[in-house]
Amino acid sequence: MNIKIIALGRIKEKFLQNGIEEFLKRISAYASISVKEINPIEIKDPHLIERTLYAEGEKILSNIKTSDYVVTMEINGKEFSSESFAKKINEIMISGTGEIVFVIGSSHGIGKNVSERANLKMSLSKMTFLHEFARLILLEQIYRAFKILNNETYHK
Amino acid sequence: MNIKIIALGRIKEKFLQNGIEEFLKRISAYASISVKEINPIEIKDPHLIERTLYAEGEKILSNIKTSDYVVTMEINGKEFSSESFAKKINEIMISGTGEIVFVIGSSHGIGKNVSERANLKMSLSKMTFLHEFARLILLEQIYRAFKILNNETYHK
Repeated sequence: MNIKIIALGRIKEKFLQNGIEEFLKRISAYASISVKEINPIEIKDPHLIERTLYAEGEKILSNIKTSDYVVTMEINGKEFSSESFAKKINEIMISGTGEIVFVIGSSHGIGKNVSERANLKMSLSKMTFLHEFARLILLEQIYRAFKILNNETYHK
Repeated sequence: MNIKIIALGRIKEKFLQNGIEEFLKRISAYASISVKEINPIEIKDPHLIERTLYAEGEKILSNIKTSDYVVTMEINGKEFSSESFAKKINEIMISGTGEIVFVIGSSHGIGKNVSERANLKMSLSKMTFLHEFARLILLEQIYRAFKILNNETYHK
């Protein structure tokens, strides 16, 4: 299985970089995983947020293939328990789709164009996390999903 | 305002230690915050989970005063948006209560004795996080709450 994370912006905090590296390494025992960082466009005028998200969205979409299964992180998306998320990952894997692509937007969210392309809109929490946290938490849940699917114990 | 985090176990991952330290420092601009770590009791027999949680619970409760407002982290607790969490923190602060005490259990959860003492049972997500993550995420939400309450911008 190939998993790709497309994320807006770079991780600035060193401690998060380290955590993200660690979970990428752990997941690689189960799947081929890669991260594609897209440079966010600076928004100087709040009126331009939507237009900017759309433009960023075009850059995101150019990294997605027709056969890919796209999961967007959205605050109003569907919430999963870790077990139901694992089941969902398994469903996607056995469906013979292309890559699973998870999209994490910027602090302003993601463009409608990307949201419309999503096969699944998912929410990690009703709370707004630092979007750098979203990447770490998502990776930990993907790792946890493989542990659950393989009936392996995992120190929670 | 005094805020206390009571948590089971120590943070083993260095990157999480660093992140937690960082947010404790940031929060200290707004409130006096401390962390009390309780040593978890090792569970060798799965039948003893509930009894162990109860015993750990007694240790937790010995760190709580009658006047404290106790918030337990529970997977089936109430979910908040970051804005409604900020509002809740404000409500508790102006009610003239003692400390706000947040309790983060072990990977097995928390004892019924602690849950019954809770003024509020809260959930960070329907997903099960590494309990070390719970501490970091909770601290980030507390920091975010003070930023929201003070109408200060915060790079999400």
